[in-house]
Amino acid sequence: MSTRPSLAQLGLDTGKKARLHRILHQHGLRNGTALFLPYDQGFEHGPRDFFANSAASDPKYVIRLALEGGFNGVVLQVGLAEKFYWDFAGELPLVLKLNGKTDIPGDGEALSPVHASVADAVRLGADAVGYTLYVGTPAQEQDFAQYRQVRADAERLGMPLIVWAYPRGSAIKDKGGKDSFYAVDYAARVASELGADVVKVNFPHPEKQSGAPGEYSTTFSTQEAIDAVVRSANRTMVLVSGGAKAGDEAMIDKARQSMEAGATGLIFGRNVWQRDHDDSLRFVERLREVLAKYDSRP
Amino acid sequence: MSTRPSLAQLGLDTGKKARLHRILHQHGLRNGTALFLPYDQGFEHGPRDFFANSAASDPKYVIRLALEGGFNGVVLQVGLAEKFYWDFAGELPLVLKLNGKTDIPGDGEALSPVHASVADAVRLGADAVGYTLYVGTPAQEQDFAQYRQVRADAERLGMPLIVWAYPRGSAIKDKGGKDSFYAVDYAARVASELGADVVKVNFPHPEKQSGAPGEYSTTFSTQEAIDAVVRSANRTMVLVSGGAKAGDEAMIDKARQSMEAGATGLIFGRNVWQRDHDDSLRFVERLREVLAKYDSRP
Amino acid sequence: MSTRPSLAQLGLDTGKKARLHRILHQHGLRNGTALFLPYDQGFEHGPRDFFANSAASDPKYVIRLALEGGFNGVVLQVGLAEKFYWDFAGELPLVLKLNGKTDIPGDGEALSPVHASVADAVRLGADAVGYTLYVGTPAQEQDFAQYRQVRADAERLGMPLIVWAYPRGSAIKDKGGKDSFYAVDYAARVASELGADVVKVNFPHPEKQSGAPGEYSTTFSTQEAIDAVVRSANRTMVLVSGGAKAGDEAMIDKARQSMEAGATGLIFGRNVWQRDHDDSLRFVERLREVLAKYDSRP
Amino acid sequence: MSTRPSLAQLGLDTGKKARLHRILHQHGLRNGTALFLPYDQGFEHGPRDFFANSAASDPKYVIRLALEGGFNGVVLQVGLAEKFYWDFAGELPLVLKLNGKTDIPGDGEALSPVHASVADAVRLGADAVGYTLYVGTPAQEQDFAQYRQVRADAERLGMPLIVWAYPRGSAIKDKGGKDSFYAVDYAARVASELGADVVKVNFPHPEKQSGAPGEYSTTFSTQEAIDAVVRSANRTMVLVSGGAKAGDEAMIDKARQSMEAGATGLIFGRNVWQRDHDDSLRFVERLREVLAKYDSRP
Amino acid sequence: MSTRPSLAQLGLDTGKKARLHRILHQHGLRNGTALFLPYDQGFEHGPRDFFANSAASDPKYVIRLALEGGFNGVVLQVGLAEKFYWDFAGELPLVLKLNGKTDIPGDGEALSPVHASVADAVRLGADAVGYTLYVGTPAQEQDFAQYRQVRADAERLGMPLIVWAYPRGSAIKDKGGKDSFYAVDYAARVASELGADVVKVNFPHPEKQSGAPGEYSTTFSTQEAIDAVVRSANRTMVLVSGGAKAGDEAMIDKARQSMEAGATGLIFGRNVWQRDHDDSLRFVERLREVLAKYDSRP
Repeated sequence: MSTRPSLAQLGLDTGKKARLHRILHQHGLRNGTALFLPYDQGFEHGPRDFFANSAASDPKYVIRLALEGGFNGVVLQVGLAEKFYWDFAGELPLVLKLNGKTDIPGDGEALSPVHASVADAVRLGADAVGYTLYVGTPAQEQDFAQYRQVRADAERLGMPLIVWAYPRGSAIKDKGGKDSFYAVDYAARVASELGADVVKVNFPHPEKQSGAPGEYSTTFSTQEAIDAVVRSANRTMVLVSGGAKAGDEAMIDKARQSMEAGATGLIFGRNVWQRDHDDSLRFVERLREVLAKYDSRP
Repeated sequence: MSTRPSLAQLGLDTGKKARLHRILHQHGLRNGTALFLPYDQGFEHGPRDFFANSAASDPKYVIRLALEGGFNGVVLQVGLAEKFYWDFAGELPLVLKLNGKTDIPGDGEALSPVHASVADAVRLGADAVGYTLYVGTPAQEQDFAQYRQVRADAERLGMPLIVWAYPRGSAIKDKGGKDSFYAVDYAARVASELGADVVKVNFPHPEKQSGAPGEYSTTFSTQEAIDAVVRSANRTMVLVSGGAKAGDEAMIDKARQSMEAGATGLIFGRNVWQRDHDDSLRFVERLREVLAKYDSRP
Repeated sequence: MSTRPSLAQLGLDTGKKARLHRILHQHGLRNGTALFLPYDQGFEHGPRDFFANSAASDPKYVIRLALEGGFNGVVLQVGLAEKFYWDFAGELPLVLKLNGKTDIPGDGEALSPVHASVADAVRLGADAVGYTLYVGTPAQEQDFAQYRQVRADAERLGMPLIVWAYPRGSAIKDKGGKDSFYAVDYAARVASELGADVVKVNFPHPEKQSGAPGEYSTTFSTQEAIDAVVRSANRTMVLVSGGAKAGDEAMIDKARQSMEAGATGLIFGRNVWQRDHDDSLRFVERLREVLAKYDSRP
Repeated sequence: MSTRPSLAQLGLDTGKKARLHRILHQHGLRNGTALFLPYDQGFEHGPRDFFANSAASDPKYVIRLALEGGFNGVVLQVGLAEKFYWDFAGELPLVLKLNGKTDIPGDGEALSPVHASVADAVRLGADAVGYTLYVGTPAQEQDFAQYRQVRADAERLGMPLIVWAYPRGSAIKDKGGKDSFYAVDYAARVASELGADVVKVNFPHPEKQSGAPGEYSTTFSTQEAIDAVVRSANRTMVLVSGGAKAGDEAMIDKARQSMEAGATGLIFGRNVWQRDHDDSLRFVERLREVLAKYDSRP
Repeated sequence: MSTRPSLAQLGLDTGKKARLHRILHQHGLRNGTALFLPYDQGFEHGPRDFFANSAASDPKYVIRLALEGGFNGVVLQVGLAEKFYWDFAGELPLVLKLNGKTDIPGDGEALSPVHASVADAVRLGADAVGYTLYVGTPAQEQDFAQYRQVRADAERLGMPLIVWAYPRGSAIKDKGGKDSFYAVDYAARVASELGADVVKVNFPHPEKQSGAPGEYSTTFSTQEAIDAVVRSANRTMVLVSGGAKAGDEAMIDKARQSMEAGATGLIFGRNVWQRDHDDSLRFVERLREVLAKYDSRP
């Protein structure tokens, strides 16, 4: 079992440390682990994601769920943050997602355009910002250009930067796909090299090797793979994404392996709110039981 | 019947609330519903739209029609606003449309360039600004970039932002088309996630399913479809567009279903002024009769 | 009887005309006259002004009084506007006062420092801004410098500018005093020469002649004096101030003479709210009866 | 007993509400009351204030005391915040004081120059900023000019603004002095009119009437005086200052009367740390017992 | 004997820590102590300071002396830095002094105007900047205003800021004078509260008590006084100034007491170069022997 580094050991300046302390030690289990509720799927995938549980179409329902479930924060795009966060301001940390895109056009040259600023996040009392970086996309140049501004603003304003490190683009498809061990491992490293404070990754699939560089062609257990990903991220804290809804046991196992590897926490959306209210809370309770075993207080 | 939220429940800051109060409670039926007259078709489609009623080519005629008909506001591009609104300044709310394009080139990579600013709207005494967002277009990046500036300016100056959320581009064509339930529903959601205060949508066609995601492939009534669209928009108020001129009964029915779904109002242009003066007012009177049934005063 | 000019005859640009139309024709008596409630005395004189009616210490009470009394607008400093206007946003026009001072230090070199901007007024949905200009003060240079910025911003943003034209400073004391005919007449003219859209003046006292230039040394009736003041203001609309609380009959008479002279309206604060609620409304009703006689609709 | 307004009723925007929620409901007694530890006396008075307890010269000792005592926040100047807050970042809210002055020159034209910005506060993860406004000073113009910038920045960045409203200057001396009922009442009002979110006042002395306006010349109990001050501040929350060290019973009584009047809390520095460690905590415990009786959770 | 804090314990950001590490651990004795050679007396006092040793009029001579003597840095104004530092660039750390004044006018309202920027220091490869702050001056407002900019630039560019904290002005004269224990102690504290990384102070004279606050009126040894000054500076490192040339033994004793108190080092100019070359180096060698006893490597 790897140990999570304490906030004092991450090379953070005062503002970032203050905000991450609030997220990790004054919300959720208050033990240095994190459970985030992302809620931008209405934008990224469209309202079809709410058909499984139409209540989840209402941002107020979802934010309240995050509060009831004892999450460490909720992730919103600027429009929902402006209209809904006031009601809960300060009760639950807000992560303002600064870019996003619809899934209507294809993903070959994926780019997630910025439509809100770090200053918007400050103005709304957010405790972190989120940025989707499409590692491997042919649109890398524009991606890095807008990322650079976000990173510099986050630096200047002491705002923690969470990078959604998503392998994407045609080349990724040819090298094992977006959730291959190769792709996830590379994405985690890129986020840390580019200055992310926290990186959100998908759980790596070591069996997806077709087209990936030779180093990834031997047999790895999933535990070995996620261990490597956390190691690649070094002082960038790792959040493991739930992705599309799947079986609960598989999810819990993924969570356990991630925490065992030294990840700081989980970011689960559809697996949480694509079911009815009480069932959501029961599932969240199981995730919290996992996190509770990895107390990371200094 | 869904209920329209009151202005106090929408997470609006003071300036936006003041201006929307003026539009919704001091003009039109003064009951919290809205009827807007859009008049940018000479730009978007060209003067051919005035051939059905050449008087409508004259902006003064159309603005006066909006006054006579008891509209809640008239939508103009900056040129017409600068030359014609002075005569009626303050008598009727002005919505300044900040972007627009001709329909001369094709729509595959649709983008509506900005040619006026929120500061122009303030200077002209407008009570809202309008922006056309082409949801699904391959030009998404430029669209979001210019939208971002408009949103931030509207925020800073307390100016309500009405988003014309229009599904467009080749991918939309392949997924059911621009007025499919899927496309309209997604567009309404995107507007709310990106911070629109009001969203203008086309009336959804649930029968257009070819190519759309599976969730939209079962049978929905038009009432179910518009209900879902209003729900997807959450605290962003919904205006349903009239679109091209069609039969009056179909239009009235569309209006009724929209209001029943919880829309805030209607935005009807060609259906109003592509007929002679008195006939226009008779049709408007029928729309007002619908709106009067949905009194939304707190 | 002079006639009030219509808004179309005042050389106003679109935004100023729109906002003044709202104030003069969509609030109060809707007849082109105006009754404003100023509420910055807590700042200018301190809370002692509320000892006569402690309810008036509460901004919510006073703004509600303005609504109940059918005023055309309420005048607030930025702090009260930010905390209280949201509740009433759009129901009653807001005039944001941009400068102010306490009366703790002496008045010899009076200057009213700016502490809010025209952009603040736009952001809060105000329909006009107010600026106190101390005509005759030795601090004239700083006063004109900050005024110049306010005027330019108001111009650029289409925001009507109401100038509190107050004769002040040691030289004024020596030339008849701050409410002499000479001083008030001069102040009205300065406001119009410097670009005020509306000027607030004290009612002139033609009998205070000691030290004033010879032209003001013959006998004038108060009607002649106020006639001259309105004439000096030319296309700048005149509001006559109530000043400290005095006898009702004297106030009504002052109001009547002012309207007879062609003033656009009245701005009465302490005379209104330094008495109990119902008595306030009874007095306001009498003022409205005066204004109703001067219907100024085009 | 007056009731404290809830945060939802104060006209706050999202960021200010989020940050004040953290201060009032996630620290201290978590019941909506506040106890702040100000620690800028080394700057305002010099190190002589630490002679009574030399340990208090060390910022680390004092910040730790604030944590041990369960304070809602500590107030620091930028230098100490930059060097010491990192160690405690996020554990205790930081109020960054933006201006200050030494007491070496006289107070006749008191002005407290700004030496840090609201952006500094954001960067350091502070939850509020503090500004000393010298109400009544002949340097009013410069004071308001720099205050205006601070207010606008705080507005733009959603940062709560705490105004130290201190009557000062020669005119104040002639009208009852800086802690007269008149002066404190006026100062509280000025802070609210100028847009403070929270105002820090000295406890008013109604017996100091010499030179004050007539309204303050009758007999008032201290309870009546502090009641009036809280009323004058309206939606601006009131913190009552401890001032120089005095008898514990008198301090507790002052605290009790303030809370009874509807103040939100206390800001006690020298009375806390000018004694040894354990005695400090015993005294703080007594203050907390007072605050606990005024639970203000919505 | 107090211990000097290590660089890692001072709350420094990366750039400041890197530059101070160079100064303290890669020059001079490389043991964490410092000996600086200030050379701005030609500006502050005029060439008269070079009459005792005319060679010292030549900047090249003095910089070479600093190199030969094993100093940790030399302090220059921008003109000398631009013309002479190139020859020695990188061999010896440069401290660029950003402000200064002649001693031609009197000191009653002392202000040291800024004539170079932190960006100049970066351009010249300096490892720190120096700023003279006149604590207690009636010109406090301008002093803080220009200091604020320097501090913010130093922050942004990771440049260590050394504050010459000099008590000055008429009020200081009345309270014990500029080198009284009271004045020096207060000045050291002000520098730390305002964000100096290093503070240069004069050696305090505890016997100068006339007019100083009562706390300073008992008997203190010079060791107790300098102990208190270092404590007041807390995490701001202290440099003790040599001042005008005096007896060597007195100087060595002052140095020893300062280091014993926990100062980081010495800044001696005239005592060094107002004698011939070899004598200078012999005296410097004695200072280094003192510093060598206070090895502060972590």
